[in-house]
Amino acid sequence: MASHAPGEPGTASGASPRARLEQAWDACLPSRVRVVEVGPRDGLQNLDRFVPTNVKIALINRLARLGFDRIEAVSFVHPRAVPQMRDAEAIMDSVERGHARLIGLVPNAHGTRRALACGMDGLNFVVSASERFNQTNLRQPIAESMASLAESIALASAAGVPMRLTISTAFGCPYEGFVDPEAVLAIAEAGAELGCHEICLGDTTGMANPRQVFHLFCDLRDRIGSAEPAVHLHNTRGSGAANLVAALQAGVTVFDASIGGLGGCPYAPGATGNVCTEDMVHMLQEMGIETGIDLAALIDTARRVEHNLGVDLPGQVMRAGIACALSSLPESNALDPSPAG
Amino acid sequence: MASHAPGEPGTASGASPRARLEQAWDACLPSRVRVVEVGPRDGLQNLDRFVPTNVKIALINRLARLGFDRIEAVSFVHPRAVPQMRDAEAIMDSVERGHARLIGLVPNAHGTRRALACGMDGLNFVVSASERFNQTNLRQPIAESMASLAESIALASAAGVPMRLTISTAFGCPYEGFVDPEAVLAIAEAGAELGCHEICLGDTTGMANPRQVFHLFCDLRDRIGSAEPAVHLHNTRGSGAANLVAALQAGVTVFDASIGGLGGCPYAPGATGNVCTEDMVHMLQEMGIETGIDLAALIDTARRVEHNLGVDLPGQVMRAGIACALSSLPESNALDPSPAG
Repeated sequence: MASHAPGEPGTASGASPRARLEQAWDACLPSRVRVVEVGPRDGLQNLDRFVPTNVKIALINRLARLGFDRIEAVSFVHPRAVPQMRDAEAIMDSVERGHARLIGLVPNAHGTRRALACGMDGLNFVVSASERFNQTNLRQPIAESMASLAESIALASAAGVPMRLTISTAFGCPYEGFVDPEAVLAIAEAGAELGCHEICLGDTTGMANPRQVFHLFCDLRDRIGSAEPAVHLHNTRGSGAANLVAALQAGVTVFDASIGGLGGCPYAPGATGNVCTEDMVHMLQEMGIETGIDLAALIDTARRVEHNLGVDLPGQVMRAGIACALSSLPESNALDPSPAG
Repeated sequence: MASHAPGEPGTASGASPRARLEQAWDACLPSRVRVVEVGPRDGLQNLDRFVPTNVKIALINRLARLGFDRIEAVSFVHPRAVPQMRDAEAIMDSVERGHARLIGLVPNAHGTRRALACGMDGLNFVVSASERFNQTNLRQPIAESMASLAESIALASAAGVPMRLTISTAFGCPYEGFVDPEAVLAIAEAGAELGCHEICLGDTTGMANPRQVFHLFCDLRDRIGSAEPAVHLHNTRGSGAANLVAALQAGVTVFDASIGGLGGCPYAPGATGNVCTEDMVHMLQEMGIETGIDLAALIDTARRVEHNLGVDLPGQVMRAGIACALSSLPESNALDPSPAG
């Protein structure tokens, strides 16, 4: 929890511009956020091997009981394009339902039909704000993706299933570099007009900085009507936590994260991918922001994932423990002071 | 750089409370910061082996030309307490001078005399805000540390050498947990009154959260007169970058960081220690905040440190590359779309 002492001597006196900034800083933060766990899809998709269907099911079942708003459980992309995710139907046949809402990624109308047949609780459609990235990643121009989104929304609406639009490379493209914020906002606006309930801006390769995140989300709110903003961040360059706080201060209350930081970055071997769920939940809970998540069980799950998958995950809290767990005193064997900064 | 479009349609209209928050968010950020590289001291001290003196000298010489305000180069703690740092005099005998200012950590008057004999450009005295941590780490009560600080400052002042006070465990103690902000502020006030030119709050074991950091630094400014605030953050629980931005928004313009994130956490094996210099410099430069540092040369140095020391460093930018370096397009061999979020 925040440990500033209200009524601190000195703070009441004068300094009104700074006092106003202090109020603004807190006033920008939400009291509660909702977390979308994307480890089973975005995380596992980036492993270089197929994770057995029963392992995926066990992970989703466990995660679904931890308090997440949603879990991105499966992908309905063509199995030849993403073979790691080829078992969507088998997963959805056997996974437990009725806990967290289970979401599926859909790339087009065909994928949407598959997802609806599985009874997904929600869909996630991805389009890039960068023409070159969309062409490379989705093999079509942005305009075709948007037409495909319209088809998919029509199908989803008829089935009463909500559709999120994720705009990838919204803060930078690994091929084009700069991405025009107006291009992002125009796609967001179009997605909201088509009926997406949520517009998520994705920092697909970890190029965003906090100032950019803050301002783009401030601008987004004026463009998407009643649709909700959401953020999908990667920690590829170490600024994921700062970007998340900036997004929350700009009014975002829904964010994606991956347990343990599971995943990685296909554009930079060895670099991290999605922001780590338990690190972000831990930070927000320490800030007094409610997440509804059972942090202790989440950390335990992250440790099991690392062990069971045999991968080194970048998550920090799973190693360091939560901040309020006290250490035992060391043996009194030092001869002399040894200051730690 | 921030990529929000000024004059975005919709943002000019109404929404005055949010517009004011947007202004406040930017207004809180400095245009320029100064970075203190602590890898040669805080980083190497936490390795479990002695790094040869000539390797330390080569590292300091290289770092000194990259644009840092200061480098914490050596420690004058008793060699039996921290054997990794036992070669302070040998380092200072041979290291190049005249580039960045070289700082030494001093634990007491004896260490201060050694540091002054080496001609250090500045000193850093550490006291903990937690009685139990001070007792465990420095083998004396806080009151004795403060008396020792007074002695050390008297010696340093007579020699015309500036003294920084670092208050460790300012945001939480691994043994006591909660640390009273007023205890931190009282030590800060006393240090400033004794003549310290800079008061640094240290998150020694990575327990801080951004809200706490922001408010404690807001409160600090009223207590330290003309002394400068500085921040020393660890990324032990993944919130280092967010804590740094919060500190800058509270008016801090000096921060410590360790190249590559060199170091680690003695309280949590496997966890990271100091925030990573090049990741933080990269983030700030992307935000349009000047650091004066040659980022490309810094990243190159981080890679050399990892290679030469044979350690895995937690730095991200050294793996992913800077955000504006474009990737080459992949081979056009995909059969179908494969959306990346």
